[in-house]
Amino acid sequence: MTLSRIYMEQKKNLKIVEKQLESVLWAPHPILNEASLDLLKAGGKRIRPLLTLLCAQYGDPSRKAVIDSAVMLELIHMASLVHDDVVDDSNLRRGKPTVKAQWDNRVAMYSGDFIFAKAIELISDLENHEIHRSISRVIRDLSLGEIDQIKELYNWKQNLRVYLRRIKRKTALLMALSCQIGALAAGCPSKVGIKLYYFGYYLGMSYQITDDILDFVGTNKQLGKPAGGDLRNGNITLPTFFALNKYGMRNAIRNVLESSSTDQGQWDTVIQEIRDSGAIQDSERLSDNYLRKSREILDQLPQLSTARSLKEIADYIGTRNY
Amino acid sequence: MTLSRIYMEQKKNLKIVEKQLESVLWAPHPILNEASLDLLKAGGKRIRPLLTLLCAQYGDPSRKAVIDSAVMLELIHMASLVHDDVVDDSNLRRGKPTVKAQWDNRVAMYSGDFIFAKAIELISDLENHEIHRSISRVIRDLSLGEIDQIKELYNWKQNLRVYLRRIKRKTALLMALSCQIGALAAGCPSKVGIKLYYFGYYLGMSYQITDDILDFVGTNKQLGKPAGGDLRNGNITLPTFFALNKYGMRNAIRNVLESSSTDQGQWDTVIQEIRDSGAIQDSERLSDNYLRKSREILDQLPQLSTARSLKEIADYIGTRNY
Repeated sequence: MTLSRIYMEQKKNLKIVEKQLESVLWAPHPILNEASLDLLKAGGKRIRPLLTLLCAQYGDPSRKAVIDSAVMLELIHMASLVHDDVVDDSNLRRGKPTVKAQWDNRVAMYSGDFIFAKAIELISDLENHEIHRSISRVIRDLSLGEIDQIKELYNWKQNLRVYLRRIKRKTALLMALSCQIGALAAGCPSKVGIKLYYFGYYLGMSYQITDDILDFVGTNKQLGKPAGGDLRNGNITLPTFFALNKYGMRNAIRNVLESSSTDQGQWDTVIQEIRDSGAIQDSERLSDNYLRKSREILDQLPQLSTARSLKEIADYIGTRNY
Repeated sequence: MTLSRIYMEQKKNLKIVEKQLESVLWAPHPILNEASLDLLKAGGKRIRPLLTLLCAQYGDPSRKAVIDSAVMLELIHMASLVHDDVVDDSNLRRGKPTVKAQWDNRVAMYSGDFIFAKAIELISDLENHEIHRSISRVIRDLSLGEIDQIKELYNWKQNLRVYLRRIKRKTALLMALSCQIGALAAGCPSKVGIKLYYFGYYLGMSYQITDDILDFVGTNKQLGKPAGGDLRNGNITLPTFFALNKYGMRNAIRNVLESSSTDQGQWDTVIQEIRDSGAIQDSERLSDNYLRKSREILDQLPQLSTARSLKEIADYIGTRNY
């Protein structure tokens, strides 16, 4: 399952988005430009703009606000990545040095602030209060998500609700927003926007759970780092949660977390045990559950060709292995 | 000259602003709450909300949007202070430890992001596109200002234009915005908003120049640190600019900056020489010039009692010594 057909179909629009990202991010500061350009070149799948463009087809996708929204959503995503790397103290993203690693925390902070400010400028051009309100709520929750990342580190006692809220803030809300804003910017009525919001939300939950599973089962080559990186950094994700609470690994995981062991062999053993428990399958089941819900939402909307594309994205997320 | 009459007159409104700040900043995170509460308790003069409230009197000051705007502007100010402390690596503000000093850069970053996100939420409730556009432009320029702070450090060759642009972004724009938004939120026509924007801009320029002068002439007690702190940190402000370019101190200042001397006596000598040159008087002259312009703007507006209050603020800024 690949998304190449969809990307081909949206190639022209995605190119416009890319051009606009480039021009929006130009600034009269060499370091800032270099940092922005690195972020642009690092690429990524532009999944949020893609969702915006696809959801806009429930209305009039030719409205200028549609492309502007797609650009704005990618900017919010980029800004939050840069700040997240400071919060997580991450030096690599997709195998490349992060802004904070290449320069320092201060550059990462102001680059993120600048990119975010450019997003705000684009938002202010969208003269639609429903869009403004929805975006501002998500921005607030994204900022709370940054803090969750730190707050729950090494907390092996956290319950499922806390994990789900964290990935909602970290990933699902911005995908939900990307879908909703696509529809609203294209002139769809509120209730279509809300349905697509939930489509994006369920999709995003599954997307992040899949990411968290891949962190355990991916190869070094796929991940660009050893498997189990989340756990090694104290980040308790869904597979660890199931291993802790359902597969009798409470002591083993607690020990390795609380000792902050530097013995990689000890970590490797625990990570292998989590893989071999049923925790991965349980996580996949929950992910599939979210995907099912996301597909059900689409059945409640007009059966346009874009619904087929959105379902393909859901299928892709259910089967992706990198 | 004090502002006590004006503060008394606006006491009720300022209290409401304070209460709203408290309630808006509540968050389900202990560290975040503590950081916010410290920022609130540190107080400050709430000059931006005060300007908003006073300028609102050119229209209908009882509109709900007026108080919300005042709160929002103080939030933007607080968020930018917290991020500036990271950029400037500052450990003290008004003699108290900064968020980044009390916790760390990461806490300062996410606290700033959170406070800023709360400001965005309030902005999205103000259903006025002129307000949105004006705010978003200022936010962009504030983020560029953060970068200027670093970029021009130790650059003794910078010209006056660069200094003025820096203090515009650092201080004057948010004061300009506070005045403009006060008027617009109170239902004034655009052109009243624009005039008050310029009033706030000139006032802010003078305010920051005065700050930069006080950093040279204040006593240790007034400043909470030794005089000349800006220069010691490589920050070339207006008095240094005049000393460099008009009073033959190029070599002395360049030497001390380029050697990054740790000999405080050497710094003390240079700072005393700057004080004794005509640089302080020249700076005061430029500050007065901005104040004169700010007063002239008020003469172009209806002669309400609030104009008298705004002029008193201008007079206060011209004479304040802390």
